[in-house]
Amino acid sequence: MDFFFNPEGVAVVGASANPLKGGYHILKNLLLGYKKNIYAVNPGYPEIDGLKCYASVLDVPDPVEMAIVFVPAAFVPKVLNQCAQRGIKGVMIQSAGFAESGEGGQALQVEIQRIGLETGVRLWGPNCMGMVDAVHGRVFSFMLPNFLEDGLTPGGVSLIVQSGMLSAGFLIDIMTHGKMGISKACSIGNKVDVDECDVLEYLIDDPDTSTIGLYLESIPDGRRFTDLCRQSHKPIIVLQGGKSKKGAEAAISHTASLAGNAAVIRGALAQVGVVEAYDFKQMMDLCRTLERYPVVRGANPGRVAIMTMSGAAGIVSADFIDSQDLAVADLSNATRESLKQIFPDWMPVTNPIDLWPAVEVHGRKKTYGRAFEAVCADPNVDAILIHLFVFSGVPNANILPLVEMANNAGKPLFCWLMGKRSEVHQFKLQAREMGMPAFDELHRTIECMAAVFSRRR
Amino acid sequence: MDFFFNPEGVAVVGASANPLKGGYHILKNLLLGYKKNIYAVNPGYPEIDGLKCYASVLDVPDPVEMAIVFVPAAFVPKVLNQCAQRGIKGVMIQSAGFAESGEGGQALQVEIQRIGLETGVRLWGPNCMGMVDAVHGRVFSFMLPNFLEDGLTPGGVSLIVQSGMLSAGFLIDIMTHGKMGISKACSIGNKVDVDECDVLEYLIDDPDTSTIGLYLESIPDGRRFTDLCRQSHKPIIVLQGGKSKKGAEAAISHTASLAGNAAVIRGALAQVGVVEAYDFKQMMDLCRTLERYPVVRGANPGRVAIMTMSGAAGIVSADFIDSQDLAVADLSNATRESLKQIFPDWMPVTNPIDLWPAVEVHGRKKTYGRAFEAVCADPNVDAILIHLFVFSGVPNANILPLVEMANNAGKPLFCWLMGKRSEVHQFKLQAREMGMPAFDELHRTIECMAAVFSRRR
Repeated sequence: MDFFFNPEGVAVVGASANPLKGGYHILKNLLLGYKKNIYAVNPGYPEIDGLKCYASVLDVPDPVEMAIVFVPAAFVPKVLNQCAQRGIKGVMIQSAGFAESGEGGQALQVEIQRIGLETGVRLWGPNCMGMVDAVHGRVFSFMLPNFLEDGLTPGGVSLIVQSGMLSAGFLIDIMTHGKMGISKACSIGNKVDVDECDVLEYLIDDPDTSTIGLYLESIPDGRRFTDLCRQSHKPIIVLQGGKSKKGAEAAISHTASLAGNAAVIRGALAQVGVVEAYDFKQMMDLCRTLERYPVVRGANPGRVAIMTMSGAAGIVSADFIDSQDLAVADLSNATRESLKQIFPDWMPVTNPIDLWPAVEVHGRKKTYGRAFEAVCADPNVDAILIHLFVFSGVPNANILPLVEMANNAGKPLFCWLMGKRSEVHQFKLQAREMGMPAFDELHRTIECMAAVFSRRR
Repeated sequence: MDFFFNPEGVAVVGASANPLKGGYHILKNLLLGYKKNIYAVNPGYPEIDGLKCYASVLDVPDPVEMAIVFVPAAFVPKVLNQCAQRGIKGVMIQSAGFAESGEGGQALQVEIQRIGLETGVRLWGPNCMGMVDAVHGRVFSFMLPNFLEDGLTPGGVSLIVQSGMLSAGFLIDIMTHGKMGISKACSIGNKVDVDECDVLEYLIDDPDTSTIGLYLESIPDGRRFTDLCRQSHKPIIVLQGGKSKKGAEAAISHTASLAGNAAVIRGALAQVGVVEAYDFKQMMDLCRTLERYPVVRGANPGRVAIMTMSGAAGIVSADFIDSQDLAVADLSNATRESLKQIFPDWMPVTNPIDLWPAVEVHGRKKTYGRAFEAVCADPNVDAILIHLFVFSGVPNANILPLVEMANNAGKPLFCWLMGKRSEVHQFKLQAREMGMPAFDELHRTIECMAAVFSRRR
């Protein structure tokens, strides 16, 4: 599989000089980041933007391990045979028009599958957007180069997505909504040969990948998939499409996937430590969070100290924690004593810990510092949830020392933010930079905490 | 109750000349928007910023119907007696230090309650942030004036919040995260006299209010509350804090509320048409959505046409719809025929309606126009969900004619957005301006659709 991710030479079959065509984008994307040999293939051009263009993949010189194919579906079988003849190891078929598009396409898909099996050439796709490797700056895809102009942040999260449009949408969203470091984003389409198991196996061994998120519409080889998940020390997050009857019907026409019994799949995945996502952006939040906290210590369920400035937010947090297989921590006597020293006399020490009355007396720095010291040392506390209100004119606590305290204590820290949109966004980026997952939604925050602790079973 | 919202003259007891004090903010906020008589009361100042300051509320001239009190809790009983003597009808007690703060505070709260009952003066609070009326520009609160500098958008949503900090947080968040028109935001605190029922009753009759959202930690008079909800034609959304044991314990120390049995309350509220919220920002989305679509027609459950450019998003939408007491619409034959004309030959017509292959052939304008015409005329479709990917370089369909088509057909239209953060935000504001609720989260979108249809029972 390594030749798909790290090939010695790539041929682009269906390269185009027309800037409106996918075959142009594939070439441009390669030229922007892939530093090895790139060969354009199209009988219609002698050269494209100064790059020599070959009439057939048969004419491409060494070294060439991988081909990206973007020609009409009907021509794909011929191209595959030529790739095999040329000694190419893997072909990414990014053309659509196969099993997802009626009977003719189904026949074509059967044909290319046969060619793959007979020649031994590994096939990725068809009907996919290929692969983006942010760590090495490689974009093996027809997605528009300007999709990437905001800059992918390299990092440890790799994605496997059984959808084209969505993989591009995911990347744009990730790039612009906050810091999430991406390693490899893989769009696997109709899975005629290379499937989620092949890519998952590769990513489990990939030193650049620390966390793996998958959007799947079917898991045909459930046995192999769950075996891989069981062996993985890396967090794996799965969003399963086609769980309902209507959703499953739609999955058939989308990527010709037969979805299995959702409840059975869900149970099997939970058993091997997979975290289930239910929505697209929530999946991103889970990936981000589990990359940050792949391993946690403490009791089961995880016991949370809630630091708030709003009684109401504390109460609703307690409600969510109760509903999520986490526990509101019973603070130790030492913590209670320590908090009593900064709380007004009339105020009982409880968890949720409402810091506002103490802030009014002692200011933010002293209040937060004391409270963090106490809960970080508290053997009854496994994780810390902090609520912050962000708006101009209201100084916030200096967060970095608090994050460091929680880090040193080995207690995962999560932040829920409310406030002015622009400032919330800036703060969120800073928080993530410091290593504190920060969220706009309270329920999302606590779902992610629960996911972190669910991995310990 | 009208004297709390629309008083002839307001006295500020505890007015301050110190810009760091709440008693200064109350005065400033009044001067910024309340156009009638404002009287500062504080024996320590002859005047504050040029405004005459009275030693006692007894000295305040006519007309004066309401007092806002922001003095230490221990002085409140005396002030209340003076207010009664002066003929003031209602007092908003914004001071803290009552039942939420231990035994001494509890005794004080009993005392002010007694004074209220004996004198007939209505009491709002204590331990609250008061009231903001965006339609008339009135801020009866100690919240910082710069909280409001982004400008509240006047509109039809009124809020009742049993929390101080949160009501300010809510407003900031609402103001900066998108267009939501606010009528009145009411922070009712410890509810010594005026409670959620009194305010709800007022708002149900308030011509400026079309939708009512409540955050509550207790509903002591469940009978009156449910009777009011049953009579209301306006949508009512409730977020209940203290549903869990730990949450209920926290509610006691927050606003001295005894939370009831959550399941019982939930069932009773559902029966009278109340929509339940589970999180703060989700509550805002529900308010926004129900303000837009207070009444819908069609079958039960509501049948949804899904317009997508991503098969995966369509599939997951179908899954959510299935889980939410909505139905994926079975398109009529006429709709199928109409879509066949723009779909490629190989493509079956299904719902979710994947428009991408047709867009590739006919462009966005024709494809979306035809598809909308078809589903708007389809008797099997009650609502439309559209997915849009927003990023620069990719033109989007011109949305306004589509929104108008859906409006004319009387079919609620909802939009889920993915894409570049800044552009998504801009688009969301435009969409809401056009009257199309637009959301970042797919599950949130479909929850809000379900809430709209749930009101028909």
